[in-house]
Amino acid sequence: MKFCSNCAAPVVKRVPPGDSLPRWVCDQCGEIHYENPRLVVGSLPEWDGRLLLCRRAIEPRYGYWTLPAGFMENDETAGQAALRETLEESGARVELGAPFSLISVPHVNQVHLFFCARLLEPDFKPGDETLEVALFDEAKLPWKDIAFRTVGLTLRHWFADRKRGAFSFHAEDIAPR
Amino acid sequence: MKFCSNCAAPVVKRVPPGDSLPRWVCDQCGEIHYENPRLVVGSLPEWDGRLLLCRRAIEPRYGYWTLPAGFMENDETAGQAALRETLEESGARVELGAPFSLISVPHVNQVHLFFCARLLEPDFKPGDETLEVALFDEAKLPWKDIAFRTVGLTLRHWFADRKRGAFSFHAEDIAPR
Repeated sequence: MKFCSNCAAPVVKRVPPGDSLPRWVCDQCGEIHYENPRLVVGSLPEWDGRLLLCRRAIEPRYGYWTLPAGFMENDETAGQAALRETLEESGARVELGAPFSLISVPHVNQVHLFFCARLLEPDFKPGDETLEVALFDEAKLPWKDIAFRTVGLTLRHWFADRKRGAFSFHAEDIAPR
Repeated sequence: MKFCSNCAAPVVKRVPPGDSLPRWVCDQCGEIHYENPRLVVGSLPEWDGRLLLCRRAIEPRYGYWTLPAGFMENDETAGQAALRETLEESGARVELGAPFSLISVPHVNQVHLFFCARLLEPDFKPGDETLEVALFDEAKLPWKDIAFRTVGLTLRHWFADRKRGAFSFHAEDIAPR
């Protein structure tokens, strides 16, 4: 059972007039409670040809490696979200470049966005949600222990683009396994 | 006053332990109700060098011209959202190209994403939220009656890119006026 956040009455899931999808509707105050995908924003922090990864200290995927990233917050831009998450998770200060990948993950109602980034100095330390932080070149990267498919895909594109000498923007979708 | 959608108890806005931002927190069931930016996704439907615009039949910006776009829904990819909104608002079937612009609008907690697109046939008609639909070349475009700054910015980039013969990806932020 769910309740209206405006008036505390129970809500029901049905298609409102003029709409085509079921929504949580409050018959007491009339409010329609929409649910929309969330943006997860992060960065690809580079130093001397290596990329900075964080080993997760939280679920999901405790102990696996990821790029610094997290849910975009209200009142910030996508770039500010990437800088904030990078600093929070890895202690690293970066200069952002262009957006590099945008990946829809519809089965979890997320869109992941990663920016190219350059470490301002080779200085980092794990934040509260991180066990360890390290720089990896392509050969040493823990490819089998990457936390999320969006991160693995983004990393593969990044090293492939670097090999051919030009970074481009990658838009993709990920389907359930 | 706001209420918990899980248990109907009143919620309070405060910084949860280990967090850095105030959230709506339920002291009865412990749920934290996060609020995050929403994605508005649309397309730039092109036919023979002209772009398709829709005149809005709803607020905000009733009567002003916009690209077909709307809130991305759960269970869909960004590309599916662009196709759906284009069809709903303009009756147009398009083939999507690459993402063209990604614009953060932090003061309304939105990120706008527009895809390049090509009309499959010059066939369109206004949907319920649209007064009229028309194709415009750059000179005839109603530049002074564009509904949203993200749309105006995206249109200017598109015609500028077309002039120089190459479409690239544009990431920007829009500040309050």
